[in-house]
Amino acid sequence: MVQNGQITFYTHVYSPPCHRVHIALEETKADYTSVTINLMEKPEWYNLKINPITGKIPAITYGGPKHPPGEPSEEATTLIESMVIVEFLAEVFPSANLLPRDLILRAKARIFASVVDSKGTDGFRGFFFTGASASGLLAFFETLQALLPPTGFAVGEWSIADIAAGPFLVRVLMLLEHDIGKYPVGEGKKTFEALRGPRFARIMKYVEDVKAWPSFRATWDEAAALAIWKMNPAIQRN
Amino acid sequence: MVQNGQITFYTHVYSPPCHRVHIALEETKADYTSVTINLMEKPEWYNLKINPITGKIPAITYGGPKHPPGEPSEEATTLIESMVIVEFLAEVFPSANLLPRDLILRAKARIFASVVDSKGTDGFRGFFFTGASASGLLAFFETLQALLPPTGFAVGEWSIADIAAGPFLVRVLMLLEHDIGKYPVGEGKKTFEALRGPRFARIMKYVEDVKAWPSFRATWDEAAALAIWKMNPAIQRN
Repeated sequence: MVQNGQITFYTHVYSPPCHRVHIALEETKADYTSVTINLMEKPEWYNLKINPITGKIPAITYGGPKHPPGEPSEEATTLIESMVIVEFLAEVFPSANLLPRDLILRAKARIFASVVDSKGTDGFRGFFFTGASASGLLAFFETLQALLPPTGFAVGEWSIADIAAGPFLVRVLMLLEHDIGKYPVGEGKKTFEALRGPRFARIMKYVEDVKAWPSFRATWDEAAALAIWKMNPAIQRN
Repeated sequence: MVQNGQITFYTHVYSPPCHRVHIALEETKADYTSVTINLMEKPEWYNLKINPITGKIPAITYGGPKHPPGEPSEEATTLIESMVIVEFLAEVFPSANLLPRDLILRAKARIFASVVDSKGTDGFRGFFFTGASASGLLAFFETLQALLPPTGFAVGEWSIADIAAGPFLVRVLMLLEHDIGKYPVGEGKKTFEALRGPRFARIMKYVEDVKAWPSFRATWDEAAALAIWKMNPAIQRN
């Protein structure tokens, strides 16, 4: 299959799920138009015309002629949920090799993504949004590390697994390094130092490998993400 | 691809995620052995040898010779997460036609599954586990209903979307009909009656269609599921 009509990508730089789709769009060399959606000042048409199901970003419209952001054509289909969109792009553009051909590795890639979305999200919310102990977050890093092969990416070659995990991991490390979160002052930096110790050497090497991958470098603007997260009320100390 | 070695399926009749895998195993006519895992008396080997990642069911081992439940062979791979296993089986046995060939319909099937796992689970927990209002659960039924085509299954033909939704929907309706949950006495039956009204006609017809589908009928033992749920401490009134 080849791209059949336009793609409009609704996104924001702060968001790990949006970053996943951005990487997949870059990898597949899709032709697309980006529209930034600020969830604090979300345009009314977004929930009405683009994502009435959850109201969240990312979303894409696929197909038909180019259209204004709030007026998709009748020929366009709207897709939501970051990993659904990533897998869709991987299948529309098979030459990007984002889905492992081996079905067992493909399942393992999806398990890796699922651990990020369950344990990772829970550990993140607990520590950054409620100021609870970092133990859940560190347990998540340990679980994810145990899934990694001795070298290389999550299932060997670069895949949807790394697209799922990378955007989340780099933001977690960025926030810890800058001590941003509802936890007590200094706990972020302390957790960051713990992650730089020998116990987490394999996963930290993995994060370095992800950051060096071309499509990741092309889509990761740490300064812009940091500026936005510094202003996120969900994560500010009172 | 054809089945390459044994499949052992770790499951329990109460669990919607396990039921998904059971349906997929039936549809694909896979050759498999079931092992019931009682989470209240989980055997020690389960977290050690089968699912050290989350400890949850379902799981399957795939490949190699038949093995005792707690001793998978070195040739076997363990897979977890219900929809990962369902998609794996769909890909190993493509002739079962569980994955829509059209990539847009395939993405829509995954979005349908994702709505069940996010809005559905949240609405369920709120009403049944904490006794909060039924509004979240009813909003979920409305959202899912809006995704259905005028007739037929979630994306037209039977697919992974129906395998994802059916096991959850039938248990919700069963519990409501029997007024089982932490909500005040009578609220379950009241909600069940609301769902039988004209506002929810399309999704209730959908549930009937799902229940009549051969692989669903072959795998749904309502009396057994009801008996187990009646004893589930998470859902009992104090």
